[in-house]
Amino acid sequence: MHIARYALDERVHYGIIENETTLVRLEGSPLDGLKRSGAIDALAAVRLLAPIERPRVFGLGYNYVAHSKESGKAVPQLPVLFMKPSTTVIGPNESIVYPDDGQNIHFEGELTVVIGKKARHVSAANALDHVLGYTCGNDVSDRVLQRRESEFGCLLAGKGYDTFAPMGPVIATGLDPSRLGVITRVNGAVRQDGTTADLLFPVPAIIAYLSRYMTLLPGDMIMTGTPAGVGPIQVGDTIEVEIEGIGILRNDVVAEDRGNAPRP
Amino acid sequence: MHIARYALDERVHYGIIENETTLVRLEGSPLDGLKRSGAIDALAAVRLLAPIERPRVFGLGYNYVAHSKESGKAVPQLPVLFMKPSTTVIGPNESIVYPDDGQNIHFEGELTVVIGKKARHVSAANALDHVLGYTCGNDVSDRVLQRRESEFGCLLAGKGYDTFAPMGPVIATGLDPSRLGVITRVNGAVRQDGTTADLLFPVPAIIAYLSRYMTLLPGDMIMTGTPAGVGPIQVGDTIEVEIEGIGILRNDVVAEDRGNAPRP
Repeated sequence: MHIARYALDERVHYGIIENETTLVRLEGSPLDGLKRSGAIDALAAVRLLAPIERPRVFGLGYNYVAHSKESGKAVPQLPVLFMKPSTTVIGPNESIVYPDDGQNIHFEGELTVVIGKKARHVSAANALDHVLGYTCGNDVSDRVLQRRESEFGCLLAGKGYDTFAPMGPVIATGLDPSRLGVITRVNGAVRQDGTTADLLFPVPAIIAYLSRYMTLLPGDMIMTGTPAGVGPIQVGDTIEVEIEGIGILRNDVVAEDRGNAPRP
Repeated sequence: MHIARYALDERVHYGIIENETTLVRLEGSPLDGLKRSGAIDALAAVRLLAPIERPRVFGLGYNYVAHSKESGKAVPQLPVLFMKPSTTVIGPNESIVYPDDGQNIHFEGELTVVIGKKARHVSAANALDHVLGYTCGNDVSDRVLQRRESEFGCLLAGKGYDTFAPMGPVIATGLDPSRLGVITRVNGAVRQDGTTADLLFPVPAIIAYLSRYMTLLPGDMIMTGTPAGVGPIQVGDTIEVEIEGIGILRNDVVAEDRGNAPRP
């Protein structure tokens, strides 16, 4: 099942996609159960939004061995965790804003988990019971800033610019996350072609690990890390993240317009 | 002015404290303006809560030179930023839960900023216009896990356990954050006695820096870093963070009760 969040006539709804053309509108959020409202919307008439509004976003670094190698990094012995501020999140077809002071901005296509039920101290065996579904994510990162921060043992600004977490186009339920193809294209050319079968810490292990420390909440999103093949984006590019069973997340890249804002 | 968030008869309100005994109840949140509801509550009759419900929490590491030295760390050349998940936040008099798998848990008393107005690309000179007020915070941290994570260039779980961000007791408005005394006591004994005059990156610089990357939102909290004198906490301890012009944030430490939850 594919669940979309969308805007129609300046209102926001969730709906289940049927026959690739129709949205069966839900009452409220799918996090509260899948209650059909009775309304039907045409997919062509709506604007798709990020699957969750202002979520908590957890991310993993270096979770594919081939990406650690291309980055010149050792394979980590624990999940390399960070958070992306909720203000990073944009929806499908929204624009990634290339910052005025950006240095070397990379795309990172990633399978992204949407938590459906509260999770605390869950085992890997039970972890997937707490998942609502999966979406495509792009963990956009400024490599220069990211590396400077990591030298000081932290990671936030380099992955935290507004618009640096495109998400969508839908939440796909009922997927087995253990071997999904993850493809990223820049202007149509394939740059990443991986599979979640290569995840160092697979989805159930990530959820179990996070829940050992904190209560995961419905609507939390977990970006599971990126396969090999990352590279720079430029203003004017179109980036697509396609994941098997979910769909294609497409975003263009535009220059920042700072207006009269002061320069640092 | 001191603004408190509190529970009374199972409802949650904000109010302005008057004469140290009375709460002038507000309509809604102070983030939407200070509209008096007409009701008056007795301070003795209410339970104070964390000033903001499930906020975004930004933290800074090594933001006092004396603390960097005691930690054996170089003085950072940029703000060492991280996020604490919203589930870390507890209010005054709530218990810090010492994790079953905790290794070396430290207190960190910190001046904590509450953002009042959206901020993006603001200069240090204008930054304080975006502040609602200040509260006391305790950036509880597992040193062993924190150091392991930082070796891999990240920081989350070690500062991210549930209950690891006590906040309160009130939001103090109209304070000058440039030279406030910050004292932390463990079981009545003073362990930290610093001043925000020693902040490596002072409050206006922190807000300007964060806003260079992301839109700060009303209700966001920024923990500004801890002075020298950090040390371990144990089950049974009472930790107090007292900041000039704000008040005392007091929390005890209890052992985790995992019930039947699986062990990692």
